[in-house]
Amino acid sequence: MNQANKGSKKGQDKKSNLGLTVTKEENFSEWFTQLIQKSELMDYSPVSGCYILRPRSYFIWEEIRTFLDAKIKADGVENCYFPMFIPESLLKKEEDHVEGFAPEVAWVETGGHTKLKERLAIRPTSETIMYDSYAKWIRSHNDLPLRLNQWCNIVRWEFKHCTPFIRLREFLWQEGHTVFATRTEAVDEAHKIVGFYVDTFKELLAVPLLTGKKSDKEKFAGAEFSLSIEALMPDGKALQAGTSHHLGQNFAKAFDIKFKDKDEKEEFAFQNSWGISIRSLGTMIMTHSDNKGLVLPPKVAKTQVVIVPLLFKHAKEEVLAAAEKLFAELKAAGIRVHLDSRESHSPGFKYNEWELKGVPIRLELGPRDLENKKVMMKVRDQDEKSSVLMADLLTAIPKELESMHERMYTKAKDNLESSIVKASSKEEVMAAVEEKKIALVPWCGSSESEIAFKEETGIQSLNAPFDQAELPAGTKCFLTGNKAVRWHLFGKSY
Amino acid sequence: MNQANKGSKKGQDKKSNLGLTVTKEENFSEWFTQLIQKSELMDYSPVSGCYILRPRSYFIWEEIRTFLDAKIKADGVENCYFPMFIPESLLKKEEDHVEGFAPEVAWVETGGHTKLKERLAIRPTSETIMYDSYAKWIRSHNDLPLRLNQWCNIVRWEFKHCTPFIRLREFLWQEGHTVFATRTEAVDEAHKIVGFYVDTFKELLAVPLLTGKKSDKEKFAGAEFSLSIEALMPDGKALQAGTSHHLGQNFAKAFDIKFKDKDEKEEFAFQNSWGISIRSLGTMIMTHSDNKGLVLPPKVAKTQVVIVPLLFKHAKEEVLAAAEKLFAELKAAGIRVHLDSRESHSPGFKYNEWELKGVPIRLELGPRDLENKKVMMKVRDQDEKSSVLMADLLTAIPKELESMHERMYTKAKDNLESSIVKASSKEEVMAAVEEKKIALVPWCGSSESEIAFKEETGIQSLNAPFDQAELPAGTKCFLTGNKAVRWHLFGKSY
Repeated sequence: MNQANKGSKKGQDKKSNLGLTVTKEENFSEWFTQLIQKSELMDYSPVSGCYILRPRSYFIWEEIRTFLDAKIKADGVENCYFPMFIPESLLKKEEDHVEGFAPEVAWVETGGHTKLKERLAIRPTSETIMYDSYAKWIRSHNDLPLRLNQWCNIVRWEFKHCTPFIRLREFLWQEGHTVFATRTEAVDEAHKIVGFYVDTFKELLAVPLLTGKKSDKEKFAGAEFSLSIEALMPDGKALQAGTSHHLGQNFAKAFDIKFKDKDEKEEFAFQNSWGISIRSLGTMIMTHSDNKGLVLPPKVAKTQVVIVPLLFKHAKEEVLAAAEKLFAELKAAGIRVHLDSRESHSPGFKYNEWELKGVPIRLELGPRDLENKKVMMKVRDQDEKSSVLMADLLTAIPKELESMHERMYTKAKDNLESSIVKASSKEEVMAAVEEKKIALVPWCGSSESEIAFKEETGIQSLNAPFDQAELPAGTKCFLTGNKAVRWHLFGKSY
Repeated sequence: MNQANKGSKKGQDKKSNLGLTVTKEENFSEWFTQLIQKSELMDYSPVSGCYILRPRSYFIWEEIRTFLDAKIKADGVENCYFPMFIPESLLKKEEDHVEGFAPEVAWVETGGHTKLKERLAIRPTSETIMYDSYAKWIRSHNDLPLRLNQWCNIVRWEFKHCTPFIRLREFLWQEGHTVFATRTEAVDEAHKIVGFYVDTFKELLAVPLLTGKKSDKEKFAGAEFSLSIEALMPDGKALQAGTSHHLGQNFAKAFDIKFKDKDEKEEFAFQNSWGISIRSLGTMIMTHSDNKGLVLPPKVAKTQVVIVPLLFKHAKEEVLAAAEKLFAELKAAGIRVHLDSRESHSPGFKYNEWELKGVPIRLELGPRDLENKKVMMKVRDQDEKSSVLMADLLTAIPKELESMHERMYTKAKDNLESSIVKASSKEEVMAAVEEKKIALVPWCGSSESEIAFKEETGIQSLNAPFDQAELPAGTKCFLTGNKAVRWHLFGKSY
């Protein structure tokens, strides 16, 4: 492949401008920042903490939306849309809840040239505005379960360091808000939703997750308990990628959500709320990408295959015609394909550009390949190129995309599993975290112990894995020395 | 159908509570308000002018989104998401534009407990925030055309009387923002988009539209010209249901959107913006619904068929079992079907309820029907019921849904066409509008004449139909007596 190498050189020359200038290992945060902007996933807006989702990233969100939406609808959830403005008095109706959110609410105080009588919160989450209506709509057991979801934007005026996809002042998410006649139904749903999230992350994003229950300190403001999905990032920090909260009757009591059961007896309802956000994209990007750029799971890659024709003067027209024919064939087969026939850029420049943008498969087509009825195929997560008969491409490509997905998931899962270490003392936990790992520890579960430990070390509880090995009799809490009640994951967290 | 009639009586008794208490003819506005709330399309929120889209209406918006989204994507448009916050200084960058929107902007002035340095507008439309980025992204003719769209929420702090689906302080829409190297490409796209809108309204909502060019006075703030789709409502008022604006180079100059052409010469780009909103739902509801309630076009009805089993004691189990079997068959065939087997409500009550909610087809199944292997079928827009063999239902239902759509469209189109009257004087226009019609007039196009006429009569220009008959030589403007330059539609408008 002399042709390609020749091209590559020129590509390298330009790399300093367009490619990544730091590695994942030497400066993870700078690597991430360069990666997402240079690959054209996002851009900055004039408002700090608010970012632009460009087509390449919004496409991924659309795929997540389509996939998860089908799952929850098949399960009986209905979509709706509630206003984003919440009167201050309404937001304050559930005490724990408002305490949790008030510090980061953006307030509208003026409409046109008129000062509003009561200021309006832009939803930091929609429990309060939705449950105000639920109280009106729910009268009898016939009205239950009520299972609504909305895909919308959310505002939380963060004062910590904002990071695109991870910590934002405005972000997109879905929020499910469901009401049941019994606690059992609600608890069952809360767990089922975690399963849907796990499937979505695995099937679309090739990201393995740690699923479990949050500690009392870390649970949602107003919830009885919170379940979470956590992913491990290459810098050793955990990223909470979604939550499913069982609210018990807390909000039902605050908002007076009551129903008459079959015996005409009035009861407070049981509720859940659950959500994932575009943070899922951040999880995916950080998990898979490398020092050449993005590595996109094929199912969510806006462009799955790029064709780069090698346009030498003596055979330009033939090669271009063959490339166009190939493009049309792949497109007709439902593959998301792009033909990069720009003459202003060298092949090598293009190779670097499309690797930076994470396109799963690159096909190179030169005069000699054409003679042999072949193309060179380069799969994004592999080092070697291979020569493939054109006639085989329509079967080879879907297979390659599928195995790339499998490889990505397996690699991430192996890494996740080997990053969890059992520990039984503060020191062991700190040592594990120092090595970019997560510690599985016997814990008493007290909020005081967690708060003190976090203050001292920056390490916090993540979740208590659903899959709990039995605690040996007499096992002591790694923090307090009191009786441990469960295994819990601890680590640094975003 | 004695059974059904018996049921109906009880239904009638309850109608005073649940059904509509005014007719479309006696009080259109009150009829609309009752209709959309009682049919559970929407509900009020605690914030005036902000409404809740319940699942039955949000479903319709999702169908519109899916349909139109596929059309624009196939045409090369890409989806994205821009932040909803626009710094005040940025909003002010295009002069006409800010003048048009400033009176109705909602402002965020506080984040958490901190006063913001610069107040932030919540997007009343996204030209300014998007074009600020476009100026950075567009460098060369290789970057054009750039055709982005977003589905999002919009805030316009209206001080006029708000109406659900029609005039709202927060609403959902899509906004396309496209950039081209040449005026021709831009103008062509502006017209093509109108075609997409017309298809969407026709194919999904069964609503015929008047397409044409807005007057200078009525065009978008900052546009060179605006194209619009207008629908005629039963109260004789026109409803502007969508717009497609050609912005010329106005915004390109304000935001410095320049590109180098093939000869390395720098040029300002040409732009369009275009959108439809959930106002499309209002258009559809007003067009088709009647004094029994909603009439939903079958393609967007969340429930297309409702099965009401007639549960008499002596044959309850057999009938219920047959209804469940029928439900499963229809569902498996991809029909959106609901089985209403509540025993707490009489059949007649249910008939009224589902007519109110606009379900296109009702199937009634009683013991005698079951004996004959038949069901009674009632189509929402028809007076008569018919008896159909169960074995024929899987072919009969899709056919009925299709012909119902056709009937609805034809009826609305006939009504629209017969409501347009030619006029050549102020008096004739006023007389036409008095009869709930729209006037087609020869007009000089001057803003002054339009402003004066509107002030005097409340009648305004709608659009100049694309399909223009030639003006006979010497035709005079119906307002000024000057030379008329085109045919234009005038009427009252929402």
